[in-house]
Amino acid sequence: MPDFQVILESIYQDAINASDKGIVASYIPELEHIDKNNFGIHLRTSDGKSYGIGDYKKRFSIQSISKVLALSKAMELIGEAIWERIDVEPSGHKFNQLALLEIENGIPRNPLINSGAIVIADILVSNLKNPKEDFLSYLRDLTGDNTICFNKDVALSEKLTGFKNYAAANLLKSFKNLQNPVDEVLDFYFHQCSIEMSCSQLSNAFYLFANNGRCLQDKLHITDGQVKRVNALMLTCGFYDEAGEFAFEVGLPGKSGVGGGIVALLPDKFVISTWSPGLNKKGNSKLGMLALAKFTTKTKLSIF
Amino acid sequence: MPDFQVILESIYQDAINASDKGIVASYIPELEHIDKNNFGIHLRTSDGKSYGIGDYKKRFSIQSISKVLALSKAMELIGEAIWERIDVEPSGHKFNQLALLEIENGIPRNPLINSGAIVIADILVSNLKNPKEDFLSYLRDLTGDNTICFNKDVALSEKLTGFKNYAAANLLKSFKNLQNPVDEVLDFYFHQCSIEMSCSQLSNAFYLFANNGRCLQDKLHITDGQVKRVNALMLTCGFYDEAGEFAFEVGLPGKSGVGGGIVALLPDKFVISTWSPGLNKKGNSKLGMLALAKFTTKTKLSIF
Amino acid sequence: MPDFQVILESIYQDAINASDKGIVASYIPELEHIDKNNFGIHLRTSDGKSYGIGDYKKRFSIQSISKVLALSKAMELIGEAIWERIDVEPSGHKFNQLALLEIENGIPRNPLINSGAIVIADILVSNLKNPKEDFLSYLRDLTGDNTICFNKDVALSEKLTGFKNYAAANLLKSFKNLQNPVDEVLDFYFHQCSIEMSCSQLSNAFYLFANNGRCLQDKLHITDGQVKRVNALMLTCGFYDEAGEFAFEVGLPGKSGVGGGIVALLPDKFVISTWSPGLNKKGNSKLGMLALAKFTTKTKLSIF
Amino acid sequence: MPDFQVILESIYQDAINASDKGIVASYIPELEHIDKNNFGIHLRTSDGKSYGIGDYKKRFSIQSISKVLALSKAMELIGEAIWERIDVEPSGHKFNQLALLEIENGIPRNPLINSGAIVIADILVSNLKNPKEDFLSYLRDLTGDNTICFNKDVALSEKLTGFKNYAAANLLKSFKNLQNPVDEVLDFYFHQCSIEMSCSQLSNAFYLFANNGRCLQDKLHITDGQVKRVNALMLTCGFYDEAGEFAFEVGLPGKSGVGGGIVALLPDKFVISTWSPGLNKKGNSKLGMLALAKFTTKTKLSIF
Repeated sequence: MPDFQVILESIYQDAINASDKGIVASYIPELEHIDKNNFGIHLRTSDGKSYGIGDYKKRFSIQSISKVLALSKAMELIGEAIWERIDVEPSGHKFNQLALLEIENGIPRNPLINSGAIVIADILVSNLKNPKEDFLSYLRDLTGDNTICFNKDVALSEKLTGFKNYAAANLLKSFKNLQNPVDEVLDFYFHQCSIEMSCSQLSNAFYLFANNGRCLQDKLHITDGQVKRVNALMLTCGFYDEAGEFAFEVGLPGKSGVGGGIVALLPDKFVISTWSPGLNKKGNSKLGMLALAKFTTKTKLSIF
Repeated sequence: MPDFQVILESIYQDAINASDKGIVASYIPELEHIDKNNFGIHLRTSDGKSYGIGDYKKRFSIQSISKVLALSKAMELIGEAIWERIDVEPSGHKFNQLALLEIENGIPRNPLINSGAIVIADILVSNLKNPKEDFLSYLRDLTGDNTICFNKDVALSEKLTGFKNYAAANLLKSFKNLQNPVDEVLDFYFHQCSIEMSCSQLSNAFYLFANNGRCLQDKLHITDGQVKRVNALMLTCGFYDEAGEFAFEVGLPGKSGVGGGIVALLPDKFVISTWSPGLNKKGNSKLGMLALAKFTTKTKLSIF
Repeated sequence: MPDFQVILESIYQDAINASDKGIVASYIPELEHIDKNNFGIHLRTSDGKSYGIGDYKKRFSIQSISKVLALSKAMELIGEAIWERIDVEPSGHKFNQLALLEIENGIPRNPLINSGAIVIADILVSNLKNPKEDFLSYLRDLTGDNTICFNKDVALSEKLTGFKNYAAANLLKSFKNLQNPVDEVLDFYFHQCSIEMSCSQLSNAFYLFANNGRCLQDKLHITDGQVKRVNALMLTCGFYDEAGEFAFEVGLPGKSGVGGGIVALLPDKFVISTWSPGLNKKGNSKLGMLALAKFTTKTKLSIF
Repeated sequence: MPDFQVILESIYQDAINASDKGIVASYIPELEHIDKNNFGIHLRTSDGKSYGIGDYKKRFSIQSISKVLALSKAMELIGEAIWERIDVEPSGHKFNQLALLEIENGIPRNPLINSGAIVIADILVSNLKNPKEDFLSYLRDLTGDNTICFNKDVALSEKLTGFKNYAAANLLKSFKNLQNPVDEVLDFYFHQCSIEMSCSQLSNAFYLFANNGRCLQDKLHITDGQVKRVNALMLTCGFYDEAGEFAFEVGLPGKSGVGGGIVALLPDKFVISTWSPGLNKKGNSKLGMLALAKFTTKTKLSIF
């Protein structure tokens, strides 16, 4: 086994000295003032060890990373029925593109693009008693951490400006692929995206995907097959139109968010989370991508 | 001059005896129960004569036909500034398609497809003191007829089911091509579409486009050049993806609505309106199209 | 009747003094060295008068203008059967776009975009004994002018560089909408486009479309209905993605070519041709468009 | 280690007894007469063992599987320069779609869709002295098997009917992303696709991708990083618009061909090849997909 702490240190040094740290997302007004000098990285291995450096305990808006956790909750609730309403293929297009959804009669390409995640949100709204509270409880259960919360200001900020998500939700509704009212589904969705976690909390939350569906609290949430599905989806669709590049450069299933977070994992081995708020042109964390590429290159731990 | 009444009679006989009367639009629940045996036709000539037969005094939902009247009002209010926000070209696609709007950064192809008409609605909401009341007054002024009204049930029906229009409006908003709140603009737009008129009222309302901008009440509303623009738009874009077919079969600028109405006109000569609720596959009134084709064939009065 | 010669003079003066004369098309190497100071305009009225100014007797490459003449010949040969293989609607896209053709299973949107014109060329190759010779004879018959010829260098230039046309023809072939070999059809098509005419020859060739199908030699070639179809197609599809603009600014059915020519006509009244090699951004002759707009504004002779 | 021979036996029994064996591809006339009862499977482990059952020694047309081998040869020849002309992302569309290529200015989405593979063919034509002979030698070198050959009848069959590939190549040429003449590149490409191999030969040929770039003859052809790139591309793009499904069901990098072959591999562990000529709706071998899914389910050997 490589000395993970040494490797994380070296990655951290490179990151804080990087001259180009990307650009902080401006399309969610509430997020655009985050300092892009933040950088954290955290690793949790399957055999119980944990390594962190930099701002790995500082919380940030997990945004689209939440889509994976919402998906696993939906799987727990309704299983394979999900795939009657969402496909499992890469879209080859931007995360918020509507054209493909329109051509394909309201069936989103996968649950990790916005339209697909909105259908997942609809499923959770239909199947949870108190959707927002219950989803939060799920994350707290996964991690054993009751401090995980929504950021209501961020949720409100998206509610007031997320017109493209309203467009997608209404388009889904026009194709009868949304069962609940648009406003109710998006209220849930914006809250889900507003959740704040640190790198270490993210590693803990994603632990079940590296551990055959069993979470850090040793509770079985989803089956082996479902974990395989989630990981396959993260690999092929987790980075929008940069999925192929991430598969090559990093070689791990993973998911990014516009808040600058990335989680990636090697089944049966580890979960790794990074946070650096500056994004590259495709909307993924610039230094996070580089950090993970260095990590798998140095450790030779990837799926390929 | 041909004997118009004789020609209308002959067209009427063919229409009421037609075996295939098309299919009544079902996507607006409030409209689907209209009897498709209704058929009316009305002609008003520039020299003041008026001819009608069948249900030409019965009112129906003018729906998309209202887009032309909204456009002329917007021209009266802000003139050429309209074209900074909307293009003037045929779209080559369905009336409610979103893909093209997305690719073209929120600039609708023309003011007669839904997204373009929604931008026009936004302009009216911004520039009229009491948008709904003032627009109704405009129509009453054009026709000298104070009985013209909204159908509030139809407007409500669309409000509850017009998800694709909500999608379009939100997409426009995401591109900053909508200045007012989505709900406010669509409330106006659904009311505008819900207006009920008879064939004779429609001929009267469109009289200004055959009379160099001067309405039946002899008031000048828009310039010669603006009339030419409106007529050119009706000819190239008035029938969605059947514009080319209408230009050939009928050869007049015109506009259809899913309520089964069609208005067409020959500048300086006449306005003709038909109503038959059954639609063809492209969403235009089946018997109305046939009636107008017969009319221009028999009279040899077309622009070509 | 306005004094046409005076109007043409005034238009000519404006044109030769224009500061921005557009950009000569460079994608056909053989055409890019034409002097953009050439400017000609020619008018032929239905009652037999003829007016010309500037370079109206100088020949240029008619390019896409030939599509209309090929279409009328195909109508003469096989009539309505054309429309089983080509639609009659505006495409809303660039003249050489392939995406729409692919989505619509090899049925071109209309006969005036490249793919549609290639299907027309295929029809002529199938139905003419000596396609190139016979097509030339047709043009010579229409005009009574035996000097009309192909420019073999231009045809060869396109053959060597017209890859997008090869792509379109092969795509048509893959959908079984081309009966003859690709090379044979394109050889005909490139020759057809390479034909050289002057403005006055063009006015003469298009005379039949303003004269109910009867050519300058008083021979009936196509029916009234077919003329109406051709004119409707020119109005809705003759200027690619600038058809709406031309319909408004000029208000006449017409057709442009990248060689800088434009022909337009008012049924039963006149044919007018312009030549100015500099193109605007949409690929239509910049000064030709302006000249025709001035002409219909000054004379008030348009279809609207 | 599982008992591979027992597992292959069980998969074989299921396959030969399957009631639905898919549909043999008909678009290449020469291939449509293959008996769909053929079924073979072959496994080669990194530690030198080899297992086979059924028709695993019978040769078939490898078709698109050849794209991976052409890519690796191009990598050997010009390295990273490939990526100036081809992207590395899933296309989200059919293998022969032109629309995306047109929108993206002639840069194919990845080297495993047809347009990308044609650019790779162009690179090989430019960089090999005798392209066809040299490419065959490469495959013979990889496998140590001099009996590998083209099937000239299949190559000719595609040459006469592969119009969509001609369309793609000409479109690439129009964007200057093809350096050699279309006919020359496609002659090479059709020959490359016509190569015949058995399952065992395929396993041997792909051995280098499971062995860090070192082939069965122990010669190093491409670097570690290049192998990772090839495997990432196979995983994200190897099965056209069924890539996500294959990633989930099988969980291995792999590539299919319309001849009914599939090769897949687990880095450092094994290569597995199947052949069953009947295809599913997405154009991948129906029983081959099922066989590989069973294999990774039974052995629990996948990347996830």
